[in-house]
Amino acid sequence: MLSSTPRTRHRRMKANGRSDPADLYAVLAAGRIAHLGVSVDGHPMVVPTVYGFDQERIFLHGSVASRSLTTGAEACVTVTVLDGLVLARSVFEHGINYRSAMIYGVPESLEDEAKLYGLRVLTEHVAPGQWDYARKPSRKELAATTLLALPLTEASVKISTGPPDDGDGPDAALGLWAGELPVVATWGVPVPDPQLAGSIAVPAHLAAYTGRPI
Amino acid sequence: MLSSTPRTRHRRMKANGRSDPADLYAVLAAGRIAHLGVSVDGHPMVVPTVYGFDQERIFLHGSVASRSLTTGAEACVTVTVLDGLVLARSVFEHGINYRSAMIYGVPESLEDEAKLYGLRVLTEHVAPGQWDYARKPSRKELAATTLLALPLTEASVKISTGPPDDGDGPDAALGLWAGELPVVATWGVPVPDPQLAGSIAVPAHLAAYTGRPI
Repeated sequence: MLSSTPRTRHRRMKANGRSDPADLYAVLAAGRIAHLGVSVDGHPMVVPTVYGFDQERIFLHGSVASRSLTTGAEACVTVTVLDGLVLARSVFEHGINYRSAMIYGVPESLEDEAKLYGLRVLTEHVAPGQWDYARKPSRKELAATTLLALPLTEASVKISTGPPDDGDGPDAALGLWAGELPVVATWGVPVPDPQLAGSIAVPAHLAAYTGRPI
Repeated sequence: MLSSTPRTRHRRMKANGRSDPADLYAVLAAGRIAHLGVSVDGHPMVVPTVYGFDQERIFLHGSVASRSLTTGAEACVTVTVLDGLVLARSVFEHGINYRSAMIYGVPESLEDEAKLYGLRVLTEHVAPGQWDYARKPSRKELAATTLLALPLTEASVKISTGPPDDGDGPDAALGLWAGELPVVATWGVPVPDPQLAGSIAVPAHLAAYTGRPI
């Protein structure tokens, strides 16, 4: 069970709240960008960053937020996947279908083997197959990379699915169409770097992305 | 020109920073979900929410964050659109192509005509055509809606496009494929509410979504 602390307890839309870790992993598996929220001199700042995760931690590329990541500062990391629009009979009942995870904690900056491990996990989440295909980080490149880890212990998951709620209310008599409009997000066709020698073909693991859901 | 304050000045990846308001509007037009960052008792919290915007303000559906939106509290609202993966010869040069806007300010809760206006702008951004098609909010529904507005005066825009950077470096000799893998995000086919009378057809403005970029 995911922890229930005052801030992860679901105050609104309780029907959407989930407490099974499998739901958390599923949301993190579906997303590619996390929004990292920190306080900088008391002012909120939210930066987008790529991430990866294992059973225990989420790994973030920290350079985008490096100036704000003083040791011991709290963070909230949110991953949201938009699945579709909920089109109701009334504007009031309109909404979105989405999956969202919020993770609270104090990010830790990783070093050495832990950093290399986290970077591999992150790379394999964002671009599966590339860790083994591309040149791996040198010692100097590793030193120039900031990698953060946040435990998955204090997390809140919300998943909203299905049609609008007003199908059995008085607005059903309006005779308006209602339903869902799904988002279809897939990987496109790889675009070669113009500087690439023409003889280098797209490797199989990248060609296989095309048409797959993101 | 967008303002340049200490926190919106681009400290990293200067080449990606933009200061033309047209870029800000373009990013906001391309996104559907904003991540609203606030401090709750000094702890960062980042919540996803739908939004709309006009030339001067971004409008947010505030109920998801209502407990944290005490009057006068500062916020950071970030909208990010993932456009693709940047696949380089080295893991170190991997990245993403994206468009991102960060807006800082103190959200104002809207009432009466301003709230109705903001809600229309928001609805027409998220689901164009639905404000005129669906039943508009009653007085009671309006009272139950929290709508926030944030001025667009203090904003930071970053746009990253193009191929990886290592095509003219030593790694080019590795003979590895490199390039971009674009994200293709479109609206799918409308799914009728199971409670819908079979005789109600999908209206033209919704049928026209299918296949269009999000």
